[in-house]
Amino acid sequence: MGVIREKQKKKGGGGFARGLLSEWRRRNWRRGGERVLVAVSGGADSTALLLALEELSRAGRLALGLTVAHLDHGLRGAAGQADARWVSELSGSLGYDCLVGEARVAERARAERDNLEQAARRARYEFLARAARQTGAAAVLTAHTLDDQAETVLLRLVRGSGVDGLGGMRPERELERGSDIMLRRPLLSWARREAAEAYCRERGVESRFDAQNEDERFARVRIRRRLLPLLSEFNPRAAEALARTASLLCEDAKALGALATGILEEARLESAPAGESALGVRTLAAAPAALRRRALRLWLEGERGDLRRIEAAHLLAVERLIFGERGGRVAELPGGLCVERRRGALLLRAKKKD
Amino acid sequence: MGVIREKQKKKGGGGFARGLLSEWRRRNWRRGGERVLVAVSGGADSTALLLALEELSRAGRLALGLTVAHLDHGLRGAAGQADARWVSELSGSLGYDCLVGEARVAERARAERDNLEQAARRARYEFLARAARQTGAAAVLTAHTLDDQAETVLLRLVRGSGVDGLGGMRPERELERGSDIMLRRPLLSWARREAAEAYCRERGVESRFDAQNEDERFARVRIRRRLLPLLSEFNPRAAEALARTASLLCEDAKALGALATGILEEARLESAPAGESALGVRTLAAAPAALRRRALRLWLEGERGDLRRIEAAHLLAVERLIFGERGGRVAELPGGLCVERRRGALLLRAKKKD
Repeated sequence: MGVIREKQKKKGGGGFARGLLSEWRRRNWRRGGERVLVAVSGGADSTALLLALEELSRAGRLALGLTVAHLDHGLRGAAGQADARWVSELSGSLGYDCLVGEARVAERARAERDNLEQAARRARYEFLARAARQTGAAAVLTAHTLDDQAETVLLRLVRGSGVDGLGGMRPERELERGSDIMLRRPLLSWARREAAEAYCRERGVESRFDAQNEDERFARVRIRRRLLPLLSEFNPRAAEALARTASLLCEDAKALGALATGILEEARLESAPAGESALGVRTLAAAPAALRRRALRLWLEGERGDLRRIEAAHLLAVERLIFGERGGRVAELPGGLCVERRRGALLLRAKKKD
Repeated sequence: MGVIREKQKKKGGGGFARGLLSEWRRRNWRRGGERVLVAVSGGADSTALLLALEELSRAGRLALGLTVAHLDHGLRGAAGQADARWVSELSGSLGYDCLVGEARVAERARAERDNLEQAARRARYEFLARAARQTGAAAVLTAHTLDDQAETVLLRLVRGSGVDGLGGMRPERELERGSDIMLRRPLLSWARREAAEAYCRERGVESRFDAQNEDERFARVRIRRRLLPLLSEFNPRAAEALARTASLLCEDAKALGALATGILEEARLESAPAGESALGVRTLAAAPAALRRRALRLWLEGERGDLRRIEAAHLLAVERLIFGERGGRVAELPGGLCVERRRGALLLRAKKKD
């Protein structure tokens, strides 16, 4: 962190914007001729992102059509409305339009029996997708920083994630499955939260205080305030190390996913009876265990629509059928389905009624 | 942990030995007819492993030829000698031979400019390999627990490891490269340190206290005493979650390693001039990034003998040659080597003198 700070100082206020431009180049994102939507909560990270985009536009380094989007989650009453006004005014003063949305996250969480964090997240992404379509944006930009990435990795680690989870957030993905609007996180792989705060100060903008960022009832806040500082005692650049790990694992997850998809396609048998789906055992048996398990998961997810209530034990039971070990010739799955081994094939079919 | 403890209680002292037997079956290790060497420091973990092996042998569940091995690292003077005597006597009382080795780790660390932990580890594994050959053992057993695995994952995480490092220790591997003696860790994937301690107590054996296990100058000890307890506030089964992650990533690392080796072999060109090694660019370009990078690393490691001083930036420079991007047609490597792009091939050769 010391290093980054010093660099910031040397470079002056331009360091942050320059960092943003470098990332833009590294990712081969278009520097002009398209419209983007910037999600701004009013916190330091998103305010810094907006200010840096403005600096680069002013300097002629970027020539994007830029719209700001802000969602009032309806969780903080007048304070939330004040944030919305503040973002709107800042946008206006920089010369940008601002789309403000309003959600009733608490009601929604109750109705959908979802937790508040999840419901808020969902409402936010729906709003952003709507706003992006409305404004014809090619991409939505969010201000997740390297610190957010480190926190995400740790959150997933304590829950026992595999490589897909530990790959953290991706710097770029489709905003929604199959959408041609992209979600981009231009601060994710390099920007420290402290640098974002410093840049706001240098630009003379006092960003909004987000009470939710300080509430230790949220695991993410405890990770940030207690776990990351402890990790920094082991390695002063622990956050950077975590982000590096995430980006390595993200590449690995991509490769593994693609290879598993290949194996699934190769294993698929066209001869399955109507209403059933079949895979050839030989192809599965020949694949490395890590790919075989992924292929089975992809198969079940594709056929069932999701993986709800499918646990590691179910996948293991299916895998045992491949090698003809103990456990019989049928593996039962939640939701009235089962996988049966019939000669050289695995069949996914409805469970027979007794 | 609560769960495990209760199980232990219900099952009585036999729970630990039963856990060991289940793992033995899961791994398909031979239950009789071979000789194994058990590494016993005298701490609770290795004492519990030895006692459980003895219990299973007595009950006729295992029929292995068993020898105990203990290394006195020469770091703790009379205390170290007392430990050696204690292990030797315990072994004798259980009916096993005990091989005791003596090392001078401090001198060795100084001579080889290595840190104490590294030097001790090296001395230990050399001793175990020697002892295994001497006794004709098919495998060496060490008592690393699930807690050790969780600590290893965290140590590597704070250093920014990728999937290979985060896979942690393997439950089974070759003791030395190319050796047919295996190193097995029968407690690694399931046994909590607490359970090992409880089992020693139940067997009425008071294991030795290892001062090194309490010395906060060692990162591993700080991880154990400060980081893991904090993680348990997020998830009471954080250690289990970390071990689970390790075993998932270990499978992934194996698959990725095998696939990268395949790509390397496919890319290798036989037409390289004498003293040079060449890879076909087309094969490399077609591979997923994660595999391409691994294949390049394997290539350089194989040709140079090791990867010392090779950093991510060097690999990126080599990768850029594949896609003909900026950075010229030659990537320099530490140690007087370089990679040159010549038509459709990457050539590894000695740097030309100016």
